[in-house]
Amino acid sequence: MLMTDIIGRKRDGHKLSREEISFFVEGYAKGEIPDYQASALLMAILLRGMDSEETLQLTMAMMHSGETIDLSSVSGVKADKHSTGGVGDKTSLVLCPMVAAQGVKIAKISGRGLGHTGGTIDKLESFPGFTTGISEETFLQNVNEVGIAIAGQTADLVPADKKLYALRDVTGTVPSIPLIVSSIMSKKLAAGADVIVLDVKQGSGTFMKSFEQAKELAEALTMVGRLAGKKTVAVITDMDEPLGNAVGNALEVREAIEVLKGEKQGELLELCLTLGACMLTEAGLAADDGEAREKLMAGIADGSALKKLAEFVSAQEGDSSAVYDLSKLPKAPVPYEVIYNNNGYVNRISADEVGLTVLQLGGGRVTKESSIDLSVGVVLKKKVGDEVRAGESLATVHASCEEKAGEAAERLLACYSISPESCEKPPFIKAIVR
Amino acid sequence: MLMTDIIGRKRDGHKLSREEISFFVEGYAKGEIPDYQASALLMAILLRGMDSEETLQLTMAMMHSGETIDLSSVSGVKADKHSTGGVGDKTSLVLCPMVAAQGVKIAKISGRGLGHTGGTIDKLESFPGFTTGISEETFLQNVNEVGIAIAGQTADLVPADKKLYALRDVTGTVPSIPLIVSSIMSKKLAAGADVIVLDVKQGSGTFMKSFEQAKELAEALTMVGRLAGKKTVAVITDMDEPLGNAVGNALEVREAIEVLKGEKQGELLELCLTLGACMLTEAGLAADDGEAREKLMAGIADGSALKKLAEFVSAQEGDSSAVYDLSKLPKAPVPYEVIYNNNGYVNRISADEVGLTVLQLGGGRVTKESSIDLSVGVVLKKKVGDEVRAGESLATVHASCEEKAGEAAERLLACYSISPESCEKPPFIKAIVR
Repeated sequence: MLMTDIIGRKRDGHKLSREEISFFVEGYAKGEIPDYQASALLMAILLRGMDSEETLQLTMAMMHSGETIDLSSVSGVKADKHSTGGVGDKTSLVLCPMVAAQGVKIAKISGRGLGHTGGTIDKLESFPGFTTGISEETFLQNVNEVGIAIAGQTADLVPADKKLYALRDVTGTVPSIPLIVSSIMSKKLAAGADVIVLDVKQGSGTFMKSFEQAKELAEALTMVGRLAGKKTVAVITDMDEPLGNAVGNALEVREAIEVLKGEKQGELLELCLTLGACMLTEAGLAADDGEAREKLMAGIADGSALKKLAEFVSAQEGDSSAVYDLSKLPKAPVPYEVIYNNNGYVNRISADEVGLTVLQLGGGRVTKESSIDLSVGVVLKKKVGDEVRAGESLATVHASCEEKAGEAAERLLACYSISPESCEKPPFIKAIVR
Repeated sequence: MLMTDIIGRKRDGHKLSREEISFFVEGYAKGEIPDYQASALLMAILLRGMDSEETLQLTMAMMHSGETIDLSSVSGVKADKHSTGGVGDKTSLVLCPMVAAQGVKIAKISGRGLGHTGGTIDKLESFPGFTTGISEETFLQNVNEVGIAIAGQTADLVPADKKLYALRDVTGTVPSIPLIVSSIMSKKLAAGADVIVLDVKQGSGTFMKSFEQAKELAEALTMVGRLAGKKTVAVITDMDEPLGNAVGNALEVREAIEVLKGEKQGELLELCLTLGACMLTEAGLAADDGEAREKLMAGIADGSALKKLAEFVSAQEGDSSAVYDLSKLPKAPVPYEVIYNNNGYVNRISADEVGLTVLQLGGGRVTKESSIDLSVGVVLKKKVGDEVRAGESLATVHASCEEKAGEAAERLLACYSISPESCEKPPFIKAIVR
């Protein structure tokens, strides 16, 4: 089999066979196929597309490029959640304890943040001592006993995706549905859960600018999950503005805890209830959406969801007292209000730009090697649809010094579009695709 | 300017600007842009296309990647000819002396053969002592005084094409009209002629399988030539079967000399008259096609075309007595007849397969470093449309030993499709595109 023939067949619009796809993925992972042939094929796939069978084969070949996690020793239904990424997305911090408190087992592999979007592991490291450097044995034991374990990506899990993603990033081949699906689903399948719930973000700050594109991605993801024998649901949610109010690692942990305490309503809680209800019903732990939501709300009301977060943090060597005493979380020295001097209504907040503002404050990584300041970030006080009166604060910047605070405030002001007319806030949950 | 943005723009179907195209070509030629980004862009160009302005800009950027030849010191009209390549294509050997005998100045850069298609320089080296290793001064002097000079590709002429072609060859990005046009025309423009005549081959042995594709290529080539200020004509000719009868270096030289002597009619002569008439009329040396053909035939009849070949061979240190005494050309020791044992009519000869047969005999290069045997090859005695009677020879194999001769004869037999019904030979000259 020749790589040039495989490229030529996809270039000419033909369907690739399982053997051809495996030849490419295995050869590329092993370093036998050069980058320049892989990037030509990726561009041909992007422009010619792949049908659901090819996408499944690509996903399976990528999954088999490395080790997979065997969760058979864990009792109960194992679930996993993935978000296509966004600014201020602290969903996992709320959702995982909420569903684990109801008996769902969460065995999750998470990433660190890069660029203007954060990563769950960085956020969790706001708890002093928290680590993802746990053995596979401890990981499985924690899933079984605590109900949640979160590990970092290892080099052994789906090595083909690591190499392919790095190549796609520099060759203009990221925005392709079969390539996105195989990248996400190969990792989810390798992680071994029975139920997979996907949060597909749609909006200006994502690859899926339109609802139609997001729906196509959601359908392709659930199709591959189903064909691979997993219960898979995708929820399409808005990412035109940041999710919730806080953006920045420790600030997002604080917001997550407020939701778990029942102190905070709004779209973050709604998202966690929606995703959580999907998990509970797919896992057979609730008869329908209504019953699932009741159980999840009861877990907040009786403190069991918050307690589950504390148990999980402890089990991964973190200081769980910070769950109950927020003053133990990292805190930036300089709070700075972003004052607006007119009356009006917020009609847009650029999620991307807010993310870049936090990056500039030191709260994100410019390169994989950057260190980050967990304490800095912003808390948006006004969101799309809110009225603003002259002299009110739009947001609070949390910075390491006055100079950075002033710069960030100026940049943040530019993220807001405020007009004299009130505007309708678009629906936050756009669709559920099963 | 970022290469990823340029790839993304072409991927999304946008037109690239002159600056973007130059950034890519210059950066890639200098080694600043990696192969994997170049191949992604090449695939995007292949699948998204380029309009005539982009193709012109790509051609000009490639031309400017290296040195160009200044023919201003040469008197008269300078012409160049290019063929998109084929099996048994010895056209330059006949055409150049024919038109030079009429006063057209030929300053030509030629290549060596690779794979199953031959190269003009290899064929010319059948003349003992012939070399293309002449100085630029001698090259220009010969064009001026003899009327013909042929040099090999140097590293300095269009270096971007050398690198891009090597990459296209291994990334499935050869069959793209803008990429083919820029590769051909950048070299033709760098070589500095005023009149460019292109022989676009169409048929099973070429990239242009259909007449429509060949016409599209011919139109794109002439458009770019015209936009670059050159008189450019393209002739579309059949390459379903090999051109003429001989395939193999010295055997093709022999056939060319037979045509120049006026001893041989047929499609090779017709092709040279067609291309030559285009050159003479575009150069203003004949009023119309009829007058041009008369002059060219007169040059054969009075021996001046053959004499021009001898002068040219001498001027490049070759033994020109071989022009008049064919026994001085390399000759393989073993002639071997390919006998057919039924009655029928030839309805197809696979040009590609004939080329591969000669390659196996040692008459072509498997890799750039291979040495070749100039003496070996085949002479097709029966061509498409010809009647064959049981026991007749289809072709003569000229081999270095009996074993290779037998193998080649068997392979050659499989190149022929012979059926009981007579078939119509398709027209050889398919169109002239100005």
